[in-house]
Amino acid sequence: MSKHALSVTREADFAAWYQQVIAEADLAEESGVRGCMVIRPWGYGIWERVQRLLDDRIKATGHENCYFPLFIPLSYFEKEAEHVDGFAKEMAVVTHHRLIQQDGRLVPDPSAKLEEPLVVRPTSETVIGAAFSRWIQSWRDLPVLINQWANVVRWEMRTRMFLRTSEFLWQEGHTAHASVDEAREETMKMLEVYRSFAEDCLALPVVAGEKPENERFPGAVSTYSIEAMMQDGKALQAGTSHFLGTTFSSAQNIRFQNANGELELAQTTSWGVSTRMIGGVIMVHGDDDGLRVPPAIAPWQVVIVPMLRDGPEDEAVIAYCRELQAALARQTALGEPVRALLDLKPAKAASKRWGWVKKGAPVIVEVGPRDQAGGNVSVIRRDRLYRPDGKLDSTVQPRGEFIDGASALLAEIQGSLHGQARERLEANIRRDVTDFAGIEAHFAEGNRYPGWVEVSWSRPTGAALDKVVERLKALKLTFRNVPNDAAPATGACIFTGEPAVERILVARAY
Amino acid sequence: MSKHALSVTREADFAAWYQQVIAEADLAEESGVRGCMVIRPWGYGIWERVQRLLDDRIKATGHENCYFPLFIPLSYFEKEAEHVDGFAKEMAVVTHHRLIQQDGRLVPDPSAKLEEPLVVRPTSETVIGAAFSRWIQSWRDLPVLINQWANVVRWEMRTRMFLRTSEFLWQEGHTAHASVDEAREETMKMLEVYRSFAEDCLALPVVAGEKPENERFPGAVSTYSIEAMMQDGKALQAGTSHFLGTTFSSAQNIRFQNANGELELAQTTSWGVSTRMIGGVIMVHGDDDGLRVPPAIAPWQVVIVPMLRDGPEDEAVIAYCRELQAALARQTALGEPVRALLDLKPAKAASKRWGWVKKGAPVIVEVGPRDQAGGNVSVIRRDRLYRPDGKLDSTVQPRGEFIDGASALLAEIQGSLHGQARERLEANIRRDVTDFAGIEAHFAEGNRYPGWVEVSWSRPTGAALDKVVERLKALKLTFRNVPNDAAPATGACIFTGEPAVERILVARAY
Repeated sequence: MSKHALSVTREADFAAWYQQVIAEADLAEESGVRGCMVIRPWGYGIWERVQRLLDDRIKATGHENCYFPLFIPLSYFEKEAEHVDGFAKEMAVVTHHRLIQQDGRLVPDPSAKLEEPLVVRPTSETVIGAAFSRWIQSWRDLPVLINQWANVVRWEMRTRMFLRTSEFLWQEGHTAHASVDEAREETMKMLEVYRSFAEDCLALPVVAGEKPENERFPGAVSTYSIEAMMQDGKALQAGTSHFLGTTFSSAQNIRFQNANGELELAQTTSWGVSTRMIGGVIMVHGDDDGLRVPPAIAPWQVVIVPMLRDGPEDEAVIAYCRELQAALARQTALGEPVRALLDLKPAKAASKRWGWVKKGAPVIVEVGPRDQAGGNVSVIRRDRLYRPDGKLDSTVQPRGEFIDGASALLAEIQGSLHGQARERLEANIRRDVTDFAGIEAHFAEGNRYPGWVEVSWSRPTGAALDKVVERLKALKLTFRNVPNDAAPATGACIFTGEPAVERILVARAY
Repeated sequence: MSKHALSVTREADFAAWYQQVIAEADLAEESGVRGCMVIRPWGYGIWERVQRLLDDRIKATGHENCYFPLFIPLSYFEKEAEHVDGFAKEMAVVTHHRLIQQDGRLVPDPSAKLEEPLVVRPTSETVIGAAFSRWIQSWRDLPVLINQWANVVRWEMRTRMFLRTSEFLWQEGHTAHASVDEAREETMKMLEVYRSFAEDCLALPVVAGEKPENERFPGAVSTYSIEAMMQDGKALQAGTSHFLGTTFSSAQNIRFQNANGELELAQTTSWGVSTRMIGGVIMVHGDDDGLRVPPAIAPWQVVIVPMLRDGPEDEAVIAYCRELQAALARQTALGEPVRALLDLKPAKAASKRWGWVKKGAPVIVEVGPRDQAGGNVSVIRRDRLYRPDGKLDSTVQPRGEFIDGASALLAEIQGSLHGQARERLEANIRRDVTDFAGIEAHFAEGNRYPGWVEVSWSRPTGAALDKVVERLKALKLTFRNVPNDAAPATGACIFTGEPAVERILVARAY
């Protein structure tokens, strides 16, 4: 068995492994501020790539970016009872606007208490709804299609980096439409944008489908999600799209005059993905040597590490590396110029190599005096780190050949990461469970990698649904979604015994 | 005199004109949340262009982006007395983390009071300093060069959109270095990045120089700024760069072992620009027809408005416009593909034309059936809207010729906006005032466009400086900066009578 770069393996302790990848890949760290993390350059660089690629797709589907206030007056929340019930328990509240010195300490100034407290936005439906009600008068003003990239805060008791932090970064799209059909079409269009973005850019295979009633966004008529399978078999909800009907338009008075001159409530939607996606990338693509970043979202796709000896031959090696970097930058991979870094930091070459392995740079190229003299490069592929004998797989290649093949190599790595994850997902959704005992048996303690189970159910609602949810909760299980492409339901609901109407995924989840 | 698109002119009421441009160009609006604005798509699109172009320059100078928490514990501020004195009066304070229903209203839950209140960041020196102290151990870890794009909050009593809002968007760079020289070099390098960015991208001529002691950032050893001249003659500080010495490294314990094994405090810098820059763009380039956006930062550089008649000939006009749009997108202007929009919104062509005039799209192209039949386009340049006879200057041109010339046209408009502003700046800095009475006379009521005055002074400090500042304040004047490229001082200080050591700018300011 090969020795790996991390001291904890996924097998031994998945949660500890996850924390170690984050630390060793310089993705993020605890900030000292409760529930908030510092996103370090490599982690933030991945987020910037996510932003750039997803933003292009959001704009290509006709949306424009805006920016709305961080603070939301309490009264905005009071207007929408169901929504506030869903969020009221976890919001940061600003009550004062000044500090003063008192006994040598800083304290909120009692004379600067706000008349109306402000909530730090947990999501922006209410404040954006208020803007929509100003913007929309006539059917000619519709649809309104906007998006915002922002930070939001939901006070969390137990936090885990990227997956659940009090402050996180996200995009939230908000749209208003003249008809239910159009709003539903928008909801599904953005779900598909998320699905294809996750697959194509993050190399994350996901299942897109509708959430059951108990998992709906507070105030939504329908909520859809994409769900990804982590390497411990748990599900991660990686994006949601909501059809909100007239919930927010009636609370915020978003009305328009239709073509017949009658006043109607607008139909609204909202949809979002967050820095949580990076947690998914780590838990899907990481291995016991650290992170593996899909080339499409890697801040640097090729990292060149010169093997320097503090001698006169260093100069020629560095010049050779610079030419290589420039030649790579002229290549195109996955539709963009190749992003190649020459790492000249003052550290040992071996330590740099392993640093980039842990960070998950897709390709690491080492260049020593011998490579330079022979017109070669030594290439390490992060997705195929070891040879069958357990040794690091570093391949010497003519420089020109490597440059010419860089585009295909990066595309191949993108595809191979996706393929591995797709295979794992497909192999681990069990579809033959026909009674509740089958679920209990499947998720029993001994089964280390239970994956997900897809079952037929009758789509109970209200109290009947609550009872089912409680039974699952006792097994630490949750409903994920009703896959859009699931087979038709057959037989009886495994929870209620009534005729089944659709198939739903059951899993442990983050 | 021509009739203009706005109802208020700059001449009649500059402040009202500014508000009208913002409203009519769909840049931003009041949000209903005290001191916070909604940045609308055209305004946010300009900010996105600013971000993209400036971010490229920040990265090209070796900086990496990170993200730090929105919330800063009070105790972090207590560590740095001078810094907190500068900010303590204007911060939003989070004191509770939950709401409850009480008598039908939502209120902060008394049982969810935070043990230590959290401040919404007004700037991030303290929390980033705490991270630096974790990251930096040895001289090998230096320099640390990072930047963050974020929202910050400074509670403001009187707000004005883009110029002074409680919440605003900005970037803040933070760096740590082993030596004073290197940190000072960084401070000046980023000042130059801001200067050249303002000139090249925003077409804003600016004066770069050092702020006097009384205008320094709280905790800084030296503060530098770029100052732009608005069309009412006032100055706008459009970016700052600070050499912080060891102020924050001693408060936050940022120490490193130098090459000799001794512990030293790091030398730090910080630098930032904000959405305030957009206020500057409005007040420098706007005219009585609305905004004029420099092509480098225009979300759309060319807007195509088809003249449709709801008839069968519309289809051919639209097809012709689509070809034009595609052909423009294949052209390059100012180093990027041309950004061309085909405006197909359901509105009258004339109303669209004037909408884009007010928004300040650099080039508006109108295409009617006659243009289409003749293979022509009708072109309006936003920087030269009227002919000498006062009529709108719309020029019919062969389509191919327009496409081939688009790159040069956009570069010319960028240059012409910069040229006009540069001329205005240079014509309105007066350098011949040699006594305080001269300042009083220059800024006396009758003078509608006083511009700035550059005088020789002795650089007094402490109480002596305070006295000078008070005298200026009585005239509503402030020191702007000591221009880097000012001539040497001559004669006596016009404030103190002592020998002058440098030349400093005096102006009214935003």
